[in-house]
Amino acid sequence: MSKSILVTGGARSGKSVIAERLTEKMGDRLIYIATAQAFDSEMEARIKTHQDRRGPQWSTISEPLDLVAALRQSDGQGPRLVDCLTLWTSNLMHHDQDVESAAKDLALAIACQSSPVVLVTNEVGAGIVPENELARRFRDEAGRVNQIIAQACDALYLAVAGYPIKVKPNDIEL
Amino acid sequence: MSKSILVTGGARSGKSVIAERLTEKMGDRLIYIATAQAFDSEMEARIKTHQDRRGPQWSTISEPLDLVAALRQSDGQGPRLVDCLTLWTSNLMHHDQDVESAAKDLALAIACQSSPVVLVTNEVGAGIVPENELARRFRDEAGRVNQIIAQACDALYLAVAGYPIKVKPNDIEL
Amino acid sequence: MSKSILVTGGARSGKSVIAERLTEKMGDRLIYIATAQAFDSEMEARIKTHQDRRGPQWSTISEPLDLVAALRQSDGQGPRLVDCLTLWTSNLMHHDQDVESAAKDLALAIACQSSPVVLVTNEVGAGIVPENELARRFRDEAGRVNQIIAQACDALYLAVAGYPIKVKPNDIEL
Repeated sequence: MSKSILVTGGARSGKSVIAERLTEKMGDRLIYIATAQAFDSEMEARIKTHQDRRGPQWSTISEPLDLVAALRQSDGQGPRLVDCLTLWTSNLMHHDQDVESAAKDLALAIACQSSPVVLVTNEVGAGIVPENELARRFRDEAGRVNQIIAQACDALYLAVAGYPIKVKPNDIEL
Repeated sequence: MSKSILVTGGARSGKSVIAERLTEKMGDRLIYIATAQAFDSEMEARIKTHQDRRGPQWSTISEPLDLVAALRQSDGQGPRLVDCLTLWTSNLMHHDQDVESAAKDLALAIACQSSPVVLVTNEVGAGIVPENELARRFRDEAGRVNQIIAQACDALYLAVAGYPIKVKPNDIEL
Repeated sequence: MSKSILVTGGARSGKSVIAERLTEKMGDRLIYIATAQAFDSEMEARIKTHQDRRGPQWSTISEPLDLVAALRQSDGQGPRLVDCLTLWTSNLMHHDQDVESAAKDLALAIACQSSPVVLVTNEVGAGIVPENELARRFRDEAGRVNQIIAQACDALYLAVAGYPIKVKPNDIEL
């Protein structure tokens, strides 16, 4: 059975590096599925930093919206790292797509993969309620995506200051 | 001895569902103590979603302010779920009540219950310092409430993407 | 070998009290290294609350910027508590200093201490992306500082509602 892992955390919590290490442990040829699109120079710099850190064993697929297709197309070629679901949520909202239904489709696709999948997402709900209505809706959607994908994955880690806390599986019975 | 549990987490972290599961494990007739008041349609929709999820074994008490009275009145009738302390803090501030002293009274009441109590609260302090002075005060009050009630409870869980991390009891000696 | 511990958490998560307890366990004469400067009455009140809580075994050094010098000067005199790195980051930015390079210097200094060091920092990246560009930059710098210092320390705790979660060392292999 293939392994699926979700890594969540705040901004600059080290979640991408943790996810890269977890992916690298599962294969030699690695596929980076980027949901980011460079709209401005700030974004471009962030993408560049992430790319420079990854070594030559990585190839990149850019897919802002259709992650199910990206997983299907890359399955059997090695472990995939999807970075990140929060940007994907934002992209879906920008294109007026139904986020919850897209997340459920992605959850199903994850369960069907033969190669491993590691996914990165963000904690965005632990601050004060945003005054902006769109920000509140985004926060709700992003949190729902995290829950749906966490349920579909074998493992869930929370990144704090560069170190992971294992959240799932745990020994808490509910 | 009756059990008391605090479940905290960010927005859409799955904390309410986790708290419901924990409450349902402790009895058959369950009491939901709601601190929410529907002031607008957004709030009404949220309350409705939560109610729909809970089954017929649940009865509801609405109490925006006097949680000590709500606990006293419902004690002996089954496990109670208080959802949530952050809204309660906001309600207290709106009515110019002393939040810290109300939290201490609630902590005492929790210790005196014969039926179990599960309480839900929010993590609101892990974002950037809010520019708004009232938001900063709210963040401080909400955090203080969390600490006071966590100390009064037997157990504390942090919800992340629908899964709980056990924070208390732990084996860390301070 | 001297012990170094980083305690992180949101606002009002109880991180300072946890850090004080950890420091007090390691000696009798304790040194508090404060990065805070009182610019306004809100800040003054916060500093006063923290001071009142600490007992007479504590002496205080105020150092908003040069923490390496503060550590060097106080080494050999007992455990030090640095509170906090987030304010330090803000002070460095205010004085147009290179935060990443200062954090790396501090990491080196921590590794060279003969007396224990406990450091407090903040989780600031788990809310919605700030609209303000400076707030985004601060969030990035603060998160980077947390990662650099966490890597230099023997132990890392996350404070939640007054209770610590041990993040490092852990048994997760990356």
